[in-house]
Amino acid sequence: MKLLVVGSVGLDTVKTPKGEVKEVLGGSASYFSVAASFFTPVNLVAVVGTDFPKEYVHLFLSRKINTDGLKTGNGKTFRWKGAYAYNLNEARTIWTRLNVFKDFNPTLPQDYRHSQYIFLANIDPELQRNILKQIHSPKVTACDTMNYWIENKKAQLLKLLKDVNLFILNDVEARKLTQEPNLMKAARAIKRLGPQIIVIKKGEHGAMMLIKSDFFSIPAYPLEELFDPTGAGDSFAGGMIGYLTKQDKMDEATLKHSVVYGTVLASFCVEDFSLNRLKQLNLSSIKKRYREFEFLTHF
Amino acid sequence: MKLLVVGSVGLDTVKTPKGEVKEVLGGSASYFSVAASFFTPVNLVAVVGTDFPKEYVHLFLSRKINTDGLKTGNGKTFRWKGAYAYNLNEARTIWTRLNVFKDFNPTLPQDYRHSQYIFLANIDPELQRNILKQIHSPKVTACDTMNYWIENKKAQLLKLLKDVNLFILNDVEARKLTQEPNLMKAARAIKRLGPQIIVIKKGEHGAMMLIKSDFFSIPAYPLEELFDPTGAGDSFAGGMIGYLTKQDKMDEATLKHSVVYGTVLASFCVEDFSLNRLKQLNLSSIKKRYREFEFLTHF
Repeated sequence: MKLLVVGSVGLDTVKTPKGEVKEVLGGSASYFSVAASFFTPVNLVAVVGTDFPKEYVHLFLSRKINTDGLKTGNGKTFRWKGAYAYNLNEARTIWTRLNVFKDFNPTLPQDYRHSQYIFLANIDPELQRNILKQIHSPKVTACDTMNYWIENKKAQLLKLLKDVNLFILNDVEARKLTQEPNLMKAARAIKRLGPQIIVIKKGEHGAMMLIKSDFFSIPAYPLEELFDPTGAGDSFAGGMIGYLTKQDKMDEATLKHSVVYGTVLASFCVEDFSLNRLKQLNLSSIKKRYREFEFLTHF
Repeated sequence: MKLLVVGSVGLDTVKTPKGEVKEVLGGSASYFSVAASFFTPVNLVAVVGTDFPKEYVHLFLSRKINTDGLKTGNGKTFRWKGAYAYNLNEARTIWTRLNVFKDFNPTLPQDYRHSQYIFLANIDPELQRNILKQIHSPKVTACDTMNYWIENKKAQLLKLLKDVNLFILNDVEARKLTQEPNLMKAARAIKRLGPQIIVIKKGEHGAMMLIKSDFFSIPAYPLEELFDPTGAGDSFAGGMIGYLTKQDKMDEATLKHSVVYGTVLASFCVEDFSLNRLKQLNLSSIKKRYREFEFLTHF
């Protein structure tokens, strides 16, 4: 069991121009671990409440996701309610109820501590760092963040970044963190903060990666029907790091392939609400879309 | 002489976060014809005033651009003053002085009428159509447009589109023309209006093309220093159609290569004000950047 993810598992209520869902499986660690599970087993670290539906735990188990680190706290599960406007570009949070997630500060199960690939999903950077300290000798440490932590815990985030190899964030966060509107310059500035590899997700505009001094840039997979963008970024990270874990390599070609797998998983994620599309996938449908993506971007 | 372009030649005054230039060479046909001239001779159709600097005519001639169709009207040259804010995304027009361009309705020189590749840059769609009628048997007819014509001359634009093979427009225009926020759906809707091939330029986010029922999508060339976006779209069209004219083919592979050449020419254009960067280029620097683009997008 080489890949560990720590993040949120929760219940989402989401409205998009295509419809509405209530109290469905959500959370960064849910999307990440299911997306990664097509490539590798996953050690999941998160907390849910006593009201968390058993069917979602079964979904994780059916995807070979180890739930030893999925603790049940005394209280209710983390909940989020959000909505997307016509262009589906940005989520508007209606409310967030942290519930048991408020006191989240996990102690890792013993056998998790030997995980070699680590993804610290978007949570408090102090918490991300506490988890990292519990891992014996990680090969690859990746993290995400969000505007809230850049605004409110920047010093702690900068401290974390010194210990991280791979930083996956979106364009808005990259610009906010560096105060640099040009994304190439922003990526170079972030590299100086610690991580050797920077991946900037640009939503419908694709993704770019900085490795050494070279950029890699690809568009998004073109989708004519987009149901719900929730979880796309975490599915991207799951596809990317799941693939890297399986390959157990970090050379330039493997990293490029991993960004394409991230793009593919994100494109599936947004085709339905919650994890409805992800949970129907198999490796051959993922590889098929990978080849389609190659066809529609290569010349 | 197979490629003909009709559009504006004018004097621009532009302010960007990188600086300011006054009364420099601008206009859609200027950018297009210089960008295309690296691949093929160009027949230029435009009008200037008696005050148009001779040095710019010499620039065209030095680039093997035929200026028989560049008429000198009785009056002043077309002028545009614009500015770009911090993110350089959208030009803000401060004023436009049409001057001699107001009465532009050209009669093509006889030897221009045998041109086989035609680019109707962004001018009144009625004028675009009048020019098209003067061409004996064009192989490829391409056009651009702008929001103003979509708002004010939509019927005439729709009539023109029935006679056009290749429509190059930007994302904002595509959404406005079709009332469809999804660009893939917008491209399919535009295809139903006539053109077999649709190219949608997305500025810093790259370009996509619809051929038959297949999409082709590429990011922009990543630039860390951007001086002035003016003319990028016309340089894109010039690189693209110049290359198509040289190859004299319209198969899928050639079309994909042409979109990459468009991307490359646009990336050079924005590295300096006016045509300053374009006029320093040669085919080998263009091909070098094409290969760089291949390296940074292929996997």
